Amino acid sequence: MRTEIATLGEFGLIKRLTEGIKLENKSSKYGVGDDAAVLSYPSEKEILVTTDLLMEGVHFDLTYVPLKHLGYKAAVVNFSDIYAMNGTPRQITVSLALSKRFSVEDMEELYAGIRLACQQYHVDVIGGDTSSSLTGLAISITCIGEADKDKVVYRNGAKETDLICVSGDLGAAYMGLQLLEREKVVLKGEKDVQPDFTGKEYLLERQLKPEARKDIIEKLAAANIVPTSMMDISDGLSSELMHICTQSNAGCRVYEEHIPIDYQTAVMAEEFNMNLTTCAMNGGEDYELLFTVPIADHEKVSQMEGIRLIGHITKPELGCALITRDGQEFELKAQGWNPLKEEK
Amino acid sequence: MRTEIATLGEFGLIKRLTEGIKLENKSSKYGVGDDAAVLSYPSEKEILVTTDLLMEGVHFDLTYVPLKHLGYKAAVVNFSDIYAMNGTPRQITVSLALSKRFSVEDMEELYAGIRLACQQYHVDVIGGDTSSSLTGLAISITCIGEADKDKVVYRNGAKETDLICVSGDLGAAYMGLQLLEREKVVLKGEKDVQPDFTGKEYLLERQLKPEARKDIIEKLAAANIVPTSMMDISDGLSSELMHICTQSNAGCRVYEEHIPIDYQTAVMAEEFNMNLTTCAMNGGEDYELLFTVPIADHEKVSQMEGIRLIGHITKPELGCALITRDGQEFELKAQGWNPLKEEK
Repeated sequence: MRTEIATLGEFGLIKRLTEGIKLENKSSKYGVGDDAAVLSYPSEKEILVTTDLLMEGVHFDLTYVPLKHLGYKAAVVNFSDIYAMNGTPRQITVSLALSKRFSVEDMEELYAGIRLACQQYHVDVIGGDTSSSLTGLAISITCIGEADKDKVVYRNGAKETDLICVSGDLGAAYMGLQLLEREKVVLKGEKDVQPDFTGKEYLLERQLKPEARKDIIEKLAAANIVPTSMMDISDGLSSELMHICTQSNAGCRVYEEHIPIDYQTAVMAEEFNMNLTTCAMNGGEDYELLFTVPIADHEKVSQMEGIRLIGHITKPELGCALITRDGQEFELKAQGWNPLKEEK
Repeated sequence: MRTEIATLGEFGLIKRLTEGIKLENKSSKYGVGDDAAVLSYPSEKEILVTTDLLMEGVHFDLTYVPLKHLGYKAAVVNFSDIYAMNGTPRQITVSLALSKRFSVEDMEELYAGIRLACQQYHVDVIGGDTSSSLTGLAISITCIGEADKDKVVYRNGAKETDLICVSGDLGAAYMGLQLLEREKVVLKGEKDVQPDFTGKEYLLERQLKPEARKDIIEKLAAANIVPTSMMDISDGLSSELMHICTQSNAGCRVYEEHIPIDYQTAVMAEEFNMNLTTCAMNGGEDYELLFTVPIADHEKVSQMEGIRLIGHITKPELGCALITRDGQEFELKAQGWNPLKEEK
């Protein structure tokens, strides 16, 4: 079944996609349907705003990413940015630009993923924009959230001797991507061949359906811990550590042996003949939380499930370094985004 | 001078573009540089959020739109949506995706336009996202604003006998577009030929550098008028009137003779052999305000400069109609966006 978008038109498509959306949060006063959405936040809250723009062929590849997963992920990565400020996401706007290749059903799939993510995280879709593109799909999501005025955590508050903590494990999403890219090449041109991903489900899940660490933010709050600095790991641990250290005017030492890595990630790195630590340090798309806490919180954080202490903050003169298992120091390097690399 | 974006990288480019940005509004607490921006609004304000996504080849044509103008317009059209809620824009986020065709200098031009618009309207750039695209330029802007809690104006409050008002004049931006498209075809392949736009400056300005009607919102506030419904005219008067009537469960009568049209628009329609009223009713991109006021405000609005009374709200059963100069009634038709039409 394929319904051409032209048969519905812009307003019809928006109506179809946003049908039955109910606003769940008290702060969401008026959603889709006017020139702007209307929000109402109490004055003891700070309002957090984050946004990103995902382009087909650069940020996602529809040959192996199902549209529903794409929608889910596009929403969740924005929630992750709000949690990384020690906040709670409340609203998103969703803008789509699509070429004629896409049908109404495709957009329903994408929206189903977005709406599922919103349900899971109790976030309201309050607006957006739908229009056409000459080629490919573009998705822009803006997320609005809240935090208590005295509890917002920035990247710039890390202090010497603070402990560096990471949630979950690293490198799996990157290995999932390698796996999908390999199968794509292997299966090129062959239809109806289903690759066997047995034993690699975790890697695929981390790549295709990441979650934001709402649970960690809640645990920290319950334990009465306000991190001195925090961010989410989207570009890779190495790059994010450098952001925190630069903005906090500090240095850091992290220990290879403490970097949390899942078993499947290790097996896959072996299979691909890749350096496991490099994958974990620079892989990206983990959407785990990287944060620092005062050394006085050592006992509390070291007992928390799902959080690993990986190092500590130093004076800025010492720079940012990884200490390997055999005691060598390697200076960290940021990767970040490179248009030359991405536009093959 | 052309600096490749790859020489700066993502973080370098963001730094270059956002350098020297100062936050002007009290509600802008923390801008570019963290996982999310932080805003602080007093509880007596509602917060307004609007967003759009502009795609090269669909929403703009860089063969005749200078990048600086594009940036200015991309920001201003979002401000217009906030004014249309009877609010004041305060912050924007700017997301860009660009192909290798664009240089650092190109992006500086685009940003110069965005920053100029922000200066003119006292809006802060608080964040965004910069990444690459396979082809073309995509710009997504989200605007956040504020309004007094009891003064937000929706589309759904128009009541029978309310007067329908329009600011400025209509159809000029559309005629400007026709003019630019014509010159583009005429001059195809010929370099260094400068088309003569003498006497048509207003049409070009309306298309290339529209303004949002901040002044009208201020005038209404000064006159103590809170419209019963309001929206900005981006898709064309016809389509917007129908939105207001549908959402307000009302009908309307508007009078051809009262539709405000500039002299240059009329001359150009004649030259193009187009129906002038159709251009004004369906042209779009006017970014004027369409609003309704109670009949009791008749004297006040009729004396306000730059506002024209064009008709009145009726019972829903009467539908939406235009009354021509010779007294005929024509049912209004919405145009809206059509992907088939735009993807030639």
